[in-house]
Amino acid sequence: MDTNKISLILEAIGSPEVDPDLVVRLQAVIFASEYPVTIKKLKEFFEDYELDQIEQALVALFSLHEEMGIQLNRVGGGYLFTTAAACGGTVRQFM
Amino acid sequence: MDTNKISLILEAIGSPEVDPDLVVRLQAVIFASEYPVTIKKLKEFFEDYELDQIEQALVALFSLHEEMGIQLNRVGGGYLFTTAAACGGTVRQFM
Repeated sequence: MDTNKISLILEAIGSPEVDPDLVVRLQAVIFASEYPVTIKKLKEFFEDYELDQIEQALVALFSLHEEMGIQLNRVGGGYLFTTAAACGGTVRQFM
Repeated sequence: MDTNKISLILEAIGSPEVDPDLVVRLQAVIFASEYPVTIKKLKEFFEDYELDQIEQALVALFSLHEEMGIQLNRVGGGYLFTTAAACGGTVRQFM
């Protein structure tokens, strides 16, 4: 996977040490999931990574989405992407 | 809306001239929509912006998501977020 741009973005948000490929794949599986994804399931699936690498990548993903329109949230013991609370008014008007 | 980090990210991907607030709100409404969002609808909704500002922000949003796990796509005359094609195998395995 080409992750040059992701590396630049991770650098811009102060997380240059995180594995860009892991960040991208975490983002994809959480986005594709209908329900919150638990750290247990992530640990089982990304078995080639250490738990602290996965946690570091999750922290980077939170940071990346912090001020965005799509945000990463902890919901019911798992991770889920939702519309940013700060954009709630915009989204309600748009619908 | 606090968009300092978004400004840094837009700079990192070579789009420092784009309105970060518009990028964030575009991302939110497209993410929240079940169906592809047309440029016509975006133009009507973001009426305080010129069409070329909206198009510039869409180009930045495409660029931002280019190598990510969540990608922006043109589908049936509109814009929609989908899982990145490059992550298809990962996502199928995960489900």
